Amino acid sequence: MSKSFRTQRRVEFRDTDAAGLMHFTAFFTKMEEVEHEFLRHLGFSVVMYDGTAKLSWPRVSAKCDYTGATRFEDLLDLELRISRLGEKSVTYDIAFSLGEQSIATGQVITVYCRIEPDVPPRSLPIPKEMTEGMQPYALAE
Amino acid sequence: MSKSFRTQRRVEFRDTDAAGLMHFTAFFTKMEEVEHEFLRHLGFSVVMYDGTAKLSWPRVSAKCDYTGATRFEDLLDLELRISRLGEKSVTYDIAFSLGEQSIATGQVITVYCRIEPDVPPRSLPIPKEMTEGMQPYALAE
Amino acid sequence: MSKSFRTQRRVEFRDTDAAGLMHFTAFFTKMEEVEHEFLRHLGFSVVMYDGTAKLSWPRVSAKCDYTGATRFEDLLDLELRISRLGEKSVTYDIAFSLGEQSIATGQVITVYCRIEPDVPPRSLPIPKEMTEGMQPYALAE
Amino acid sequence: MSKSFRTQRRVEFRDTDAAGLMHFTAFFTKMEEVEHEFLRHLGFSVVMYDGTAKLSWPRVSAKCDYTGATRFEDLLDLELRISRLGEKSVTYDIAFSLGEQSIATGQVITVYCRIEPDVPPRSLPIPKEMTEGMQPYALAE
Repeated sequence: MSKSFRTQRRVEFRDTDAAGLMHFTAFFTKMEEVEHEFLRHLGFSVVMYDGTAKLSWPRVSAKCDYTGATRFEDLLDLELRISRLGEKSVTYDIAFSLGEQSIATGQVITVYCRIEPDVPPRSLPIPKEMTEGMQPYALAE
Repeated sequence: MSKSFRTQRRVEFRDTDAAGLMHFTAFFTKMEEVEHEFLRHLGFSVVMYDGTAKLSWPRVSAKCDYTGATRFEDLLDLELRISRLGEKSVTYDIAFSLGEQSIATGQVITVYCRIEPDVPPRSLPIPKEMTEGMQPYALAE
Repeated sequence: MSKSFRTQRRVEFRDTDAAGLMHFTAFFTKMEEVEHEFLRHLGFSVVMYDGTAKLSWPRVSAKCDYTGATRFEDLLDLELRISRLGEKSVTYDIAFSLGEQSIATGQVITVYCRIEPDVPPRSLPIPKEMTEGMQPYALAE
Repeated sequence: MSKSFRTQRRVEFRDTDAAGLMHFTAFFTKMEEVEHEFLRHLGFSVVMYDGTAKLSWPRVSAKCDYTGATRFEDLLDLELRISRLGEKSVTYDIAFSLGEQSIATGQVITVYCRIEPDVPPRSLPIPKEMTEGMQPYALAE
């Protein structure tokens, strides 16, 4: 059974829209915040340096299914799991809930890359110490 | 063969992030802008009134696949098609490109709903005049 | 000597721009978050109801002076004081710092208003229990 | 008599908040968009290179006074003037209006700087060809 990483986020006023609900794009912003908080929790940053270039995690895909509505000042529970830990990529599943109610379920696929100016990002194997830190949060395949 | 609705959007400075690229959430904001521009083009607004309640289009799902990178001041071409025109829901496919290069492909599923305070949104059949306006942009099933 | 209300905010990736720094607009978003957190701390919400209409705090003015730069993942200290507590308005001063370094100083002027659809917001005297809660944070005039 | 630079911006759904109005931070985003559109109009970009470093315009101050309210889908008129053209800095005044109604008046002070990694931005005299392009939009002192 895999572990999950849990945190909370408040629905801030800037997250709402004229319909009075949290705007659908704000879920993606919060999904990214949780991913970064998870990496910090493991002792890493989402942007690292190897002395010559940046190493980071561009995303190749993001999606979210909305199952409930959430409003200003709600305090959301966010739960992150790794649904796939590949050699060069990580798929994060993030569940949003408000008390007992499910609000949304998102997924982000990120690829570990070397990023240099003027050339496209180049994917790399994820370093062993990262893979080891992530392993307990990954679903067995 | 279905029609498409085309427009353009500039990558503004606020759309970028510290990696120098358009942030992945900004694609969703622009997908929504195109959807609303399309509805205005048909003569509708995304929020309408029937005298007693708001009628609008909450989204049940949104996703985006990223295939290229785009930077500050790039002028993006956006092309919207309807991949499914249901009785109560519309699925929009939106392609982002920069010159000849594909940058991203997104999809949003929206449901036509009556929105009243303190009760969950209730789905409704899409009015006939809207369906007729949308039909030319819908892929034949 | 007036009290101050202190909290912290992380510079999230979405707060940054292509210059690698926190974007100047993100300071205003965080100023609002602190204001709302302060009101919650006093036992109020920024949007309340009197049974017939919303009571809230539209802003008439906002400004920020930038004295330092801040980057992704910095953990900022925010300190709020009330520089003027009027009969119908509150002026908040918010200082941003990173360790010993001052990053920015902002000011927001808000007016207590009754907000009804289709008429402009109408200013009202701030209720006594709010004024009493705010008084310790206000500079003596 | 100085010239002004005029453009328009739509209030998009993401610009609104749960009060149904354009959020106060969205005015700052649009002020920046107009500033950049003005620089493009003069033939410059807000971020340029001299071969060894970036040259850009960090802001030292931003403010906005709100005099009216604006809602989703409103088409705003924006008018930019230069209220002070200094040796190293430019002060932009931007007026927002909706038809005949004034909505807001903003001001941004920017400084022309050389930006290198790991050192603070260093201010520089504005190049002569930029000053000449800006002069017609500057109020006589």
